[in-house]
Amino acid sequence: MNLSPEWVVGFVDGEGCFYIGVNPHPEMSVGYQVLPEFRVVQHRRDVAVLYALKRFFRAGVVRQNHADRYELRIRKLSALAQVIAFFDQHPLKTKKRQDFLKFREVVRRIQQGEHLNPEGLQRIIRIAMQMNRKDKPKAEAILAELRATTG
Amino acid sequence: MNLSPEWVVGFVDGEGCFYIGVNPHPEMSVGYQVLPEFRVVQHRRDVAVLYALKRFFRAGVVRQNHADRYELRIRKLSALAQVIAFFDQHPLKTKKRQDFLKFREVVRRIQQGEHLNPEGLQRIIRIAMQMNRKDKPKAEAILAELRATTG
Repeated sequence: MNLSPEWVVGFVDGEGCFYIGVNPHPEMSVGYQVLPEFRVVQHRRDVAVLYALKRFFRAGVVRQNHADRYELRIRKLSALAQVIAFFDQHPLKTKKRQDFLKFREVVRRIQQGEHLNPEGLQRIIRIAMQMNRKDKPKAEAILAELRATTG
Repeated sequence: MNLSPEWVVGFVDGEGCFYIGVNPHPEMSVGYQVLPEFRVVQHRRDVAVLYALKRFFRAGVVRQNHADRYELRIRKLSALAQVIAFFDQHPLKTKKRQDFLKFREVVRRIQQGEHLNPEGLQRIIRIAMQMNRKDKPKAEAILAELRATTG
């Protein structure tokens, strides 16, 4: 299956997800790890499309997401940089572009190491919270804790 | 917002729905109405994309679907014929293409008037039931009733 750039934009406008995970990570001095992730989830019947996207982006892992749902997940920073370059050149048309722009901003800050100090991490979480996400209360709680730490 | 054909294919591969409604309709001699429908549903924030698709297909109605969901819905047979011609020329890449092909078959049969006699309607419902649909029990029940009528 060969995918054209415009098809990929349309499909990701519908099915793609730019997500910033923030997880407790005791080995990091700020106590949290920031995990930007680009994800496309499909029913098992369309796992071939996920593999085609993996070939298209030359990156990522296809794995089971939940029950009969599968996902292509791209986490590697160098690969995300290429995904970002692609969507810079081929802009998304839905409001998902707003999420993409915030995602790009967070990845840029991570590349500069901002996530390694509490102030930088707070800025990153604040940007991530402006994105379309379901776990806002969790992010709020982490933010409150970091604020308490940095005073 | 200008949409390219390939973007439309990608987006519909993700978000589009080819659906065959079968509803009781006392004024029709077979007692049921067959309503093929092409639909794209989006959150209200992306209603602009629905209007862009409406312009692209030069057909359809944008209306509220449910709560903060909106839909572009195309029902007119002549417009569906154009939608079908488009996806014949620009094939879908996901398994949604299987639904599309069954949808195309049903529309062709409706154009030939097969839905107006009980045997033709049964054939149409049997095709519709092979599609990815949630209301199979309802379709089964209608089929059983029609079978009882035609003996």
